[in-house]
Amino acid sequence: MSGTGESFIVGLIGEGITASLTPPMHEREADQQGLRYIYRPIDLTTLGRPGTDVGALLRACRDLGFNAFNVTHPCKQLVLAELDEVSDDAARLGAVNTVLIRDGRFLGHNTDFSGFGGALAGGLPDAALDSVVQLGVGGAGAAVAYALLKAGTGALTLLDLDPLRAAERAAALSGLFPDRRITSGTPADLPSVLPGADGLVHATPVGMHSHPGIAVDLQLLSPSQWVADVVYRPVETELIRGARAMGCRVLDGGRMAVGQAVDAFELITGIRPDAERMLAHFHELIDQGR
Amino acid sequence: MSGTGESFIVGLIGEGITASLTPPMHEREADQQGLRYIYRPIDLTTLGRPGTDVGALLRACRDLGFNAFNVTHPCKQLVLAELDEVSDDAARLGAVNTVLIRDGRFLGHNTDFSGFGGALAGGLPDAALDSVVQLGVGGAGAAVAYALLKAGTGALTLLDLDPLRAAERAAALSGLFPDRRITSGTPADLPSVLPGADGLVHATPVGMHSHPGIAVDLQLLSPSQWVADVVYRPVETELIRGARAMGCRVLDGGRMAVGQAVDAFELITGIRPDAERMLAHFHELIDQGR
Repeated sequence: MSGTGESFIVGLIGEGITASLTPPMHEREADQQGLRYIYRPIDLTTLGRPGTDVGALLRACRDLGFNAFNVTHPCKQLVLAELDEVSDDAARLGAVNTVLIRDGRFLGHNTDFSGFGGALAGGLPDAALDSVVQLGVGGAGAAVAYALLKAGTGALTLLDLDPLRAAERAAALSGLFPDRRITSGTPADLPSVLPGADGLVHATPVGMHSHPGIAVDLQLLSPSQWVADVVYRPVETELIRGARAMGCRVLDGGRMAVGQAVDAFELITGIRPDAERMLAHFHELIDQGR
Repeated sequence: MSGTGESFIVGLIGEGITASLTPPMHEREADQQGLRYIYRPIDLTTLGRPGTDVGALLRACRDLGFNAFNVTHPCKQLVLAELDEVSDDAARLGAVNTVLIRDGRFLGHNTDFSGFGGALAGGLPDAALDSVVQLGVGGAGAAVAYALLKAGTGALTLLDLDPLRAAERAAALSGLFPDRRITSGTPADLPSVLPGADGLVHATPVGMHSHPGIAVDLQLLSPSQWVADVVYRPVETELIRGARAMGCRVLDGGRMAVGQAVDAFELITGIRPDAERMLAHFHELIDQGR
């Protein structure tokens, strides 16, 4: 590590993110790459500041020598108004999770969708993606749906407890991908739509430590289907465990969590990190109870 | 370096400090100590912000996860009003150059004086300090005079082109060190006061690259005296070169510049750095034209 070379200060702005695993993931990979790198959580909850302060924080980051930051709930949309440039994908998705500071300007990107895309490719190689059912269309769900369509999904069924939200998301995505068949419904539609699908993505909070349980009747799955979960705390959700027991190929939420970090790291440093090494480190952190 | 261990973000707040050698000095030593450490210049000149913004910058540093910062001109006095605690020495000196952020509180210290004290001890071991003449009583001069008195100087003569400033400084120091003989005058007094002194400290800008020249008639020196210069760009000032040629022991400004960094590093990290290694690195940076 050079005493005078390039160095990176990166922040994560969001609510309740003090225990995020993203900072140690970035820092450990930077060590492996020989980079001087510090990644700090900037927790709005701890600071007692509203999400609308993201612009002020962003300008403070710039003035104090930060190179980049990630933003998460509740700032992924709020930050858009503060940026000088937004990548095409982030603009289409209407959400930014990575901001680069270059020559004093703010450049927005989204690695949630690309991270899920990378997770799919790495964790479920050769999985058929033509017809997919997705449960949950909130923030993570929006990125996942966009990633599926970017990856070539031809028929996407979006289900949400809030049918209006699902219908709006489907309409918005249909505008962006007019040659696909994007429909919407509620979880009550699972018995009718799931049997014909190649795979299922679960993108609701159910299964998290704070929301234990399972949102899908496992009896609806067949062993030929794959199942992806965006929940990663725990990595082994009831859904993942149950689907695996059914014989399904599974993609746990860890790969998506790592995927967004892999892509953000590359945007920030210009260096493609070792995704498998970052995944191994992520599991190590989880095992340590981080 | 641990992927999850303690890490340090440190800033330097001041005007025109983008090219300061302090950041690379800290970072290199941190590498040697195995610490994750980034030190960023926060240049008020570049940002177009006044010194009175130091409080706002300090709070922003705290919110964004900085651990500490150094402050320099024009903020060493201005910062006092923003602190929760000030060390005894910094309070007596009326100037702070190092602020630690601990549990959200701001703790002020001064390592300019202690750095000069360390420089004296390291660079002129066993030098007699009983009677000293000091030329220049500005910001650096105030710290140097305080350090001399802390080191035991019994008779200190403060000379400045501004006799009022010299008299005020002498009076203030007499209040803090009532058992010493502290007098004041102008450079015109050098011929009468220098011959009886153990040593001379030069603390004016004369001799800097931007103010070339020499402020002392070398013929007034005798080989039994030591000469210290606070100017360190260049390290080899006309005064240092001339005094050495006269046979005097000399202390160049590099050791004071390094000394303040050595002590700040220890306050920030709790680890005593290797002062000689930092000095060697400082000379390396100077030789590189930094």
